[in-house]
Amino acid sequence: MSAPELDARTAAQLAFLVEADQLKSVERANPLIDGSRRENSAEHSWHVALMALVLAEKADPPVDVGRVLALCLLHDLVEIDAGDTVPWDVEGRATKADREAAAADRLFALLPPDQAVTFRRWWDEFEANETGEARLAHAVDRLSALIVNHASGGRLWREHGRTEAVARARNEQLGEWVGALHPLAQALLDDAAAEGWFADP
Amino acid sequence: MSAPELDARTAAQLAFLVEADQLKSVERANPLIDGSRRENSAEHSWHVALMALVLAEKADPPVDVGRVLALCLLHDLVEIDAGDTVPWDVEGRATKADREAAAADRLFALLPPDQAVTFRRWWDEFEANETGEARLAHAVDRLSALIVNHASGGRLWREHGRTEAVARARNEQLGEWVGALHPLAQALLDDAAAEGWFADP
Repeated sequence: MSAPELDARTAAQLAFLVEADQLKSVERANPLIDGSRRENSAEHSWHVALMALVLAEKADPPVDVGRVLALCLLHDLVEIDAGDTVPWDVEGRATKADREAAAADRLFALLPPDQAVTFRRWWDEFEANETGEARLAHAVDRLSALIVNHASGGRLWREHGRTEAVARARNEQLGEWVGALHPLAQALLDDAAAEGWFADP
Repeated sequence: MSAPELDARTAAQLAFLVEADQLKSVERANPLIDGSRRENSAEHSWHVALMALVLAEKADPPVDVGRVLALCLLHDLVEIDAGDTVPWDVEGRATKADREAAAADRLFALLPPDQAVTFRRWWDEFEANETGEARLAHAVDRLSALIVNHASGGRLWREHGRTEAVARARNEQLGEWVGALHPLAQALLDDAAAEGWFADP
């Protein structure tokens, strides 16, 4: 890439946005619903933000939807350096926090200094998962895996021989984050169990 | 897909979110910056929303960034039915508005009635391009094509034998929508011309 003539602020914003393009090449374990391929982290982030926009009304007390969308758009950006770490990668999970923090250090520093601080604060808010906005973002992120797996006929669960107990344990947290989303997660899991998409325990 | 037991409102929200997954399979003309493949409309929508988040400060008067993000997330959803219509598809452009309006009628009607109205209003706002929020969304959508093409070494312009005059005309509008983004578009085009990425007129 050659260097267009820009003021320092705009040049920094452009550099960040060009770097961000790489999230389109980070492959996740989850499939597209039609089963044609696995999804990548950029299109997943779009789907999660759309889920937040549709399901924000379930948050109690109400949340700042604009900030939830910002958290959803940014939540996986660190995977450009750190990759997607799947739940069953025990070794990877031990180093996940450190690898992702290093990625956040590098990526957000591409922005102009004041935006680097703001964007990092949003990512830290998502990671800490203490505000209502972060909890909703976490809940729809978790829900997205459940929705695409259920709608694709339990593809990932069947491929990985996932047991019902493991899937349910993973989704109990979701109800702690946003109680009103628990019945949806529960209904999808009940249906998956009835369909026989889980492995024997 | 089987049918989980859900209240009517949540079932409608789920149906919409499952249908939306298809945007990940709509291919656009623009490449990934690394040239590995073309981008799809879902990951493009994520990138455009991220651009809006970074560049919203250029809007004058200031805009409601949360609404801009909603417009960006929804702006291409109609392509699930209507496909991506490229600027040089003269025949396709003649029917684009009708095809996309029919798609909007079908897709947003999947949502619960009150959300169908709200989401359709956002999409109509984007299309009308009269509010500051819609203009910023349009400007970053236009800019995204410029950024990925510039950063990929002018890939699309070279493949399609695009002339400088055509590229510049297309990007003049961007400055009418958000004046402060015009210098960025201009600098990318100046650089592309200096690199010799455009065809002879």
